Amino acid sequence: MTDEPLTVGVLGYRFMGRAHANAMARLPMFFPDAPEVERHTLVGRDEEALAEAADRLGFTHTATDWADAIEAVDVFYNLGPNHVHVEPSVAALEAGVPVLCEKPLAPTLEGAERMRDAAADAGVPAGCAFNYRFVPALQHARNLIADGELGEIRQVRGRYLQDWLVDPEAPWAWRMDADLAGSGALGDLGAHSIDLAGFLVGDRVGEIDHVSGHLETFVEERPVLDGEGDVEAYRDVTVDDAFSAQVAYESGAMGTFEASRFATGHKNDHTIEVHGSTGSLRFSLERLNELEVLREGDRGYETVLVTDESDPYVDHWWPPGHVLGWEHTFVHENYEFLSSVSTGTSFEPSFEQGYAVQRVMDAIQRSDERGEWVSL
Amino acid sequence: MTDEPLTVGVLGYRFMGRAHANAMARLPMFFPDAPEVERHTLVGRDEEALAEAADRLGFTHTATDWADAIEAVDVFYNLGPNHVHVEPSVAALEAGVPVLCEKPLAPTLEGAERMRDAAADAGVPAGCAFNYRFVPALQHARNLIADGELGEIRQVRGRYLQDWLVDPEAPWAWRMDADLAGSGALGDLGAHSIDLAGFLVGDRVGEIDHVSGHLETFVEERPVLDGEGDVEAYRDVTVDDAFSAQVAYESGAMGTFEASRFATGHKNDHTIEVHGSTGSLRFSLERLNELEVLREGDRGYETVLVTDESDPYVDHWWPPGHVLGWEHTFVHENYEFLSSVSTGTSFEPSFEQGYAVQRVMDAIQRSDERGEWVSL
Amino acid sequence: MTDEPLTVGVLGYRFMGRAHANAMARLPMFFPDAPEVERHTLVGRDEEALAEAADRLGFTHTATDWADAIEAVDVFYNLGPNHVHVEPSVAALEAGVPVLCEKPLAPTLEGAERMRDAAADAGVPAGCAFNYRFVPALQHARNLIADGELGEIRQVRGRYLQDWLVDPEAPWAWRMDADLAGSGALGDLGAHSIDLAGFLVGDRVGEIDHVSGHLETFVEERPVLDGEGDVEAYRDVTVDDAFSAQVAYESGAMGTFEASRFATGHKNDHTIEVHGSTGSLRFSLERLNELEVLREGDRGYETVLVTDESDPYVDHWWPPGHVLGWEHTFVHENYEFLSSVSTGTSFEPSFEQGYAVQRVMDAIQRSDERGEWVSL
Amino acid sequence: MTDEPLTVGVLGYRFMGRAHANAMARLPMFFPDAPEVERHTLVGRDEEALAEAADRLGFTHTATDWADAIEAVDVFYNLGPNHVHVEPSVAALEAGVPVLCEKPLAPTLEGAERMRDAAADAGVPAGCAFNYRFVPALQHARNLIADGELGEIRQVRGRYLQDWLVDPEAPWAWRMDADLAGSGALGDLGAHSIDLAGFLVGDRVGEIDHVSGHLETFVEERPVLDGEGDVEAYRDVTVDDAFSAQVAYESGAMGTFEASRFATGHKNDHTIEVHGSTGSLRFSLERLNELEVLREGDRGYETVLVTDESDPYVDHWWPPGHVLGWEHTFVHENYEFLSSVSTGTSFEPSFEQGYAVQRVMDAIQRSDERGEWVSL
Repeated sequence: MTDEPLTVGVLGYRFMGRAHANAMARLPMFFPDAPEVERHTLVGRDEEALAEAADRLGFTHTATDWADAIEAVDVFYNLGPNHVHVEPSVAALEAGVPVLCEKPLAPTLEGAERMRDAAADAGVPAGCAFNYRFVPALQHARNLIADGELGEIRQVRGRYLQDWLVDPEAPWAWRMDADLAGSGALGDLGAHSIDLAGFLVGDRVGEIDHVSGHLETFVEERPVLDGEGDVEAYRDVTVDDAFSAQVAYESGAMGTFEASRFATGHKNDHTIEVHGSTGSLRFSLERLNELEVLREGDRGYETVLVTDESDPYVDHWWPPGHVLGWEHTFVHENYEFLSSVSTGTSFEPSFEQGYAVQRVMDAIQRSDERGEWVSL
Repeated sequence: MTDEPLTVGVLGYRFMGRAHANAMARLPMFFPDAPEVERHTLVGRDEEALAEAADRLGFTHTATDWADAIEAVDVFYNLGPNHVHVEPSVAALEAGVPVLCEKPLAPTLEGAERMRDAAADAGVPAGCAFNYRFVPALQHARNLIADGELGEIRQVRGRYLQDWLVDPEAPWAWRMDADLAGSGALGDLGAHSIDLAGFLVGDRVGEIDHVSGHLETFVEERPVLDGEGDVEAYRDVTVDDAFSAQVAYESGAMGTFEASRFATGHKNDHTIEVHGSTGSLRFSLERLNELEVLREGDRGYETVLVTDESDPYVDHWWPPGHVLGWEHTFVHENYEFLSSVSTGTSFEPSFEQGYAVQRVMDAIQRSDERGEWVSL
Repeated sequence: MTDEPLTVGVLGYRFMGRAHANAMARLPMFFPDAPEVERHTLVGRDEEALAEAADRLGFTHTATDWADAIEAVDVFYNLGPNHVHVEPSVAALEAGVPVLCEKPLAPTLEGAERMRDAAADAGVPAGCAFNYRFVPALQHARNLIADGELGEIRQVRGRYLQDWLVDPEAPWAWRMDADLAGSGALGDLGAHSIDLAGFLVGDRVGEIDHVSGHLETFVEERPVLDGEGDVEAYRDVTVDDAFSAQVAYESGAMGTFEASRFATGHKNDHTIEVHGSTGSLRFSLERLNELEVLREGDRGYETVLVTDESDPYVDHWWPPGHVLGWEHTFVHENYEFLSSVSTGTSFEPSFEQGYAVQRVMDAIQRSDERGEWVSL
Repeated sequence: MTDEPLTVGVLGYRFMGRAHANAMARLPMFFPDAPEVERHTLVGRDEEALAEAADRLGFTHTATDWADAIEAVDVFYNLGPNHVHVEPSVAALEAGVPVLCEKPLAPTLEGAERMRDAAADAGVPAGCAFNYRFVPALQHARNLIADGELGEIRQVRGRYLQDWLVDPEAPWAWRMDADLAGSGALGDLGAHSIDLAGFLVGDRVGEIDHVSGHLETFVEERPVLDGEGDVEAYRDVTVDDAFSAQVAYESGAMGTFEASRFATGHKNDHTIEVHGSTGSLRFSLERLNELEVLREGDRGYETVLVTDESDPYVDHWWPPGHVLGWEHTFVHENYEFLSSVSTGTSFEPSFEQGYAVQRVMDAIQRSDERGEWVSL
């Protein structure tokens, strides 16, 4: 740990680029013990847009080649589309540069394996940015489960519903292409649920032992728009619009997962539910300050507003009842990741854990293709 | 249709016996156009308990042999445990006596097939008592879907959670035995969800084409209690404590089903959710007067209290906002069934439909055993 | 207590007549220790409608003069409009006939006083039918408060919202006339809240010491319809469409009450909330099986489904999670009242308590007229 | 409008100081058209704590005398306790420096009047920081009401519940002293509700015409702690722990308001409800991304997640369903206020509006003292 600020290079300046840039910008005021950070190099292809983004997001440099950025910085954030996760991340790790990569880790299991191996060899923090682990209510949930408040875990249920593709004329995008994205609702949304379930109950139920998956594509092709917004062609949708999965954990616990981009009326509805022998809990991302908890002796779920000073991360923010938003998960995640980089300690969720999620997703896809359960 | 009251014989005088006896008793005041009914013969084995029950439930006769009852009555209600569904129901139908049988139709697919065939041959009403079809909110839901308010149906989700077996020392009962019950949570709870999904969206999505199932037994044996309530032995649990299933409908729509007797804190939590291309809806049995509906142009679910005069069956009861209970579903069901008997018209849910549910359950069980999807 | 059934005479055969007739009809099956009851004489003015109602509601006799009914029966139910509460109830009591009278006790404080005095002189049960006291969840709430689970009671909040008058062309009815009804939303709805608050916390906070009231009439006149449904005239609305009140209890606790017939979208939304020094609770009539409770050490409200065998009255009905409806409150109320009659014990809510509510309502009206707080 | 950044001086560096400093810090990334701002001078008394806060909150200078700050800056934020609202704000305005002052405007009506007059004379933006006007869901609500979606407004209900004083041994603070704070729950919480009601429905119902108030202090004295946290004395609580009020608007619409610091289990539960002749709406601060709306033709409230691109301010942030937090209201408020300063346009809520709220609060207090309605 030196007195120099950590220089961070970031690939990607759209949605995730803004979320992480904002997170870094907020650390000094709310997490004064976080390492000092310089938003150093922003990486993208369109120079004009890139310059504008760098200015707005507070980066001092830009680069159109990620390799240049990796050379120039202490830490590399890979926030690009899935198909650019592997090469830059591996290159950074091979150069000894810690990496925080957005989820899912890679479009293919092979890619994820390369990333995991590179992380293992590099010995620097390599994080897969499952940001929902950093929701205070979910860290509180994990603590309750770890403390045995729910007893023996029997059932887990993850569900992530969105509706942005419900219109059959919604335009084609890289997220609908198997080569670029790997999968659809499964990798984009389901990855979160699978990781979160592991985070919450993994210590109690062990690994997923075998899975059964079901993927569907409801709209087979979508318009590609030209510069004027007119349809210039139709392109195949080669990923799932929705998926479901059943899983058996090593302990005998059961799980079900489901995600959809066609759940009309649901914008960002990620719910997770856990039943144990002495208690249960429920969480919904659209009410992310709340956790519903039922413990031994309770007759119903208690709706807990997880905004007390004693709740995870909350003492950094506002008094009880002054709710946090979605973006705060990124602040917490950046705080933990950058602290790990600064102190040389390990960070979770790691590439290893990102790879574990990828294995499950891969098994779900194979199960769907084969029409049978697949063991992991 | 004659002026004589219909005489009804009822096998079973516990939970379901009371629910149906109460339903019949309430018809004259609230459904004055229902056929007149005499609660005629109550059937059971324990003569003392039977006599007491007959007195309380308003039956004029008792019988310890169901065959005697069938001879004596116009209509036969089979409300016994699953393993006594087949013989008496078939015998009644062969005698030309209409039958209302509790769900699931039979412990085995073969038994259900016999019942279905007997019903087809008899040509009298033969109903499988899926009472949740008679919740006003769910009939309203079905109407909305039939009217196209939700557009093309894409996803269905049924979940039935209870927790009465969460204590590993909860005593053994016939519902935990494969020979007597056929299955556990699947047949007891899942049957309701599968039938209800068909009722709501079947016209839109067609039959279930193939299924994948997952059954688990969390507690392998349970105490058998003697007369003093002391444990005299332990007996194997040979049915599922919980199940999940994925289904593909003919139309390409997806479904997931789940039920549990181990969902700590959930007493009778039967939920069903449907997503279509232009709308969605949600229902929970524990709030059975409410339906959450989202239609084209809506931004969120509307919580509708389905207690208006124009809602199904509600004009028979109380003014808007004066909520109904669980038992009212039985009144509506008895009204429809007895009216069918009286007028000689067909009744739904029929044995044919009960058999269809049984086929799905059988496929779920076989899928679980084989570790592969099973086609229907 | 004799072996003869209690004969009951009932004035009124519409909404309340049906609710109480149904309640009496259900006692034998669910409350076998209730006294045997004969629905004896139904009283009304329109002979044809009366005969039809008597047939449907199971009465063996009819009378067009309530005095005849009182002579003929053991028990008298006064379920007529408010302006016929006083004379028949007083006459019955003077004849030594127990009375159950619908709420509010009378249209005026003077009338209520006469009824209270007649009840005191008669020495037979005289009940004011505040049926919400018999909701299992509310009896459970009262028990929690009595057991000190909420500590020292600080604040009470009652609110009863309906919307059946929101249309300015909704026709005139007796409930809108000061002479016939006494008051509007105040007496029809507010009376329930005021009584319920007393039932729940009265032992803890004492009587209401002084009140401040606010009454408004939003639509000043309404159409009177002729037989064809055409408007034949307009008649003044002389009662409140909505009211609010602030109250101070003897203990220093505060209360607020509010009711409306103009709360668009609310059908029968009666809520009550209590805050104590160590806990809080909330109840809504539209979800009458639920109670939200927060106790010492809890971080949020626990949503309790009050349908366990150990909950008030529930062991008479169905297993946990099988919800009751609005009408069950009348069964419980009739059970208690008729048992009191049969055993000669006192019944609550009594005329004395109905009078106490009337005093509060009268003070609220006077406060509104005078523009000042009124002491009780 | 010049190219120089606006220099801002801020009095107060605790809760509100952090909220506004954070808001200013976030403008460049999310509101690029906001004027450039320099967090210039932070004002406080304790030099050590002040220096530390200035460093953390990003201020370049400090001052222990607010007069010095006012001389040095372009804009003055008065975020101190209520009793230091008047003098510095008036001084700034007299110096032609725009002021944003926290609510309530002043501890007394006289103080508020002075501030209002100074603002009127100064002709520069003078804002009273009722931040809840800047919740997207509430701006959406206001738009719906302004567009007539709720018809004629009949009833308004505001309620602000907290529980931080429920422990009688919670230590004394300036917020419990009449001289320093003016009032208790009324000024701290009720001011928000009264202003918000005016913001939402004021154009429709006019001003508040007369009010009736009720204030209570449940715990009469509280411990003053010394440096070690030991009780060194007890000091009187001279403000209300809770209040309620009834109001009549010019149009004949009714309102009720209530706030408490003793509502056990409620952390920051600010709810507002409006009923109109064709619709209703509800809002709760603890779920600040949601608005419940019922419009003509709806049967129930629609739960709208107000996070679409077309919702107020939301296009500056994240995609639909990615929820905002409490602090975002300050960003929006600062954006609007600083834009007004920069462009010389007027800002709302103004000192004039803060004064109007103060008049209502003053009338509520006088009503409580006199035991009668008070006209405004």
